[in-house]
Amino acid sequence: MDQKAFKDLTVQLRKFAHDRDWEQFHSPKNLAMALAGEAGELLEHFQWLTEKQSAELSGKKLKEAGEELADILIYLIRISDQLNLDLIDEVQNKIKINEKKYPVDKVRGSAKKYNEY
Amino acid sequence: MDQKAFKDLTVQLRKFAHDRDWEQFHSPKNLAMALAGEAGELLEHFQWLTEKQSAELSGKKLKEAGEELADILIYLIRISDQLNLDLIDEVQNKIKINEKKYPVDKVRGSAKKYNEY
Amino acid sequence: MDQKAFKDLTVQLRKFAHDRDWEQFHSPKNLAMALAGEAGELLEHFQWLTEKQSAELSGKKLKEAGEELADILIYLIRISDQLNLDLIDEVQNKIKINEKKYPVDKVRGSAKKYNEY
Amino acid sequence: MDQKAFKDLTVQLRKFAHDRDWEQFHSPKNLAMALAGEAGELLEHFQWLTEKQSAELSGKKLKEAGEELADILIYLIRISDQLNLDLIDEVQNKIKINEKKYPVDKVRGSAKKYNEY
Repeated sequence: MDQKAFKDLTVQLRKFAHDRDWEQFHSPKNLAMALAGEAGELLEHFQWLTEKQSAELSGKKLKEAGEELADILIYLIRISDQLNLDLIDEVQNKIKINEKKYPVDKVRGSAKKYNEY
Repeated sequence: MDQKAFKDLTVQLRKFAHDRDWEQFHSPKNLAMALAGEAGELLEHFQWLTEKQSAELSGKKLKEAGEELADILIYLIRISDQLNLDLIDEVQNKIKINEKKYPVDKVRGSAKKYNEY
Repeated sequence: MDQKAFKDLTVQLRKFAHDRDWEQFHSPKNLAMALAGEAGELLEHFQWLTEKQSAELSGKKLKEAGEELADILIYLIRISDQLNLDLIDEVQNKIKINEKKYPVDKVRGSAKKYNEY
Repeated sequence: MDQKAFKDLTVQLRKFAHDRDWEQFHSPKNLAMALAGEAGELLEHFQWLTEKQSAELSGKKLKEAGEELADILIYLIRISDQLNLDLIDEVQNKIKINEKKYPVDKVRGSAKKYNEY
């Protein structure tokens, strides 16, 4: 993951908000709400589908799902920017935490939560 | 945004799931639920804070918020992978849509939704 | 649905918040976040289960799901109270809207959304 | 809270689903997604408002918020029905838990979480 490149996208979205004078609305609190709202819209695409159907989206439905995913990433980048967090550092850090929390030999093939072991 | 680099992270997370035989649980439907669950956890960090306080997180609270953001990006990448969508393409496409939907001269300083104009 | 009885529960929860001087935190905005946070916790109980498994919860898991449902209703009642809305009136009104939107002879056995017909 | 009355609403919504042959879609897993989707829509009404503005909804905006609240209660009742849980029992039980968890003399005026004390 190229962090400089990710920062370019951060800057692009910061400018988008600045040009519209939207920074006043973009507190982390508000952005978290907007992100969760988009996550809710994503759910609505899948809620009445079987798991199998959810993996076979195509055409208009796939396009719409892609737009929801984009909305979520946009808000994710904006929150990270407002909190001065490097999203890629955060992910790499979280993957390390998850590797310890879910060791391969212990969790293989199981969806149990860590604290249930 | 370096798409090849983003793909590296996609591959890293795909391997993480594969090593644990978790692909069976990773339908887009289930991953969308997991993402929305993490978005809910993010909300819990901010729900009783003022907007101003939400912008001043530090120490343990900031660290925890960062982990939630990472969880969300991880699921976002996994869903995109399962749907064969390029997340960066989707974001660039969505930014173009938003530029048309929210022209600077029309929306400057307003949080009204597009359809309310 | 006995509206007076529902109002009793509303009053009970209003007193709970008042006794703790929590009204200052209970703006509709904040309560909506808290409700969505609890909805996210509910999702986490079901996200890796099949639909069939989700219908067969028992013991500790069923108890935990029940607590999430209770949390959601508690926040739902608090928001309605803060907005001066009668939740039961709202539901009866919404059922009428849904009966028109989803006429039996048109939607029977289909999960398609209204606007896809 | 009149439990018999609440059961009447449960029966009314069960019939609504049955008449449309929608029971096949109404697994607790799917209903939890639908509920969280509606919670996401509720968030969207409040995300760019200040807390103060969120308490002053009127006209069309208040009506729309009321419909979202109704949708959430409808799905909440449907899930409880599918899990054979009595929603009112669950709330009364949860209020008792919360009274122990948040004793008045300890939490008065504070939004700290229980585990932060």
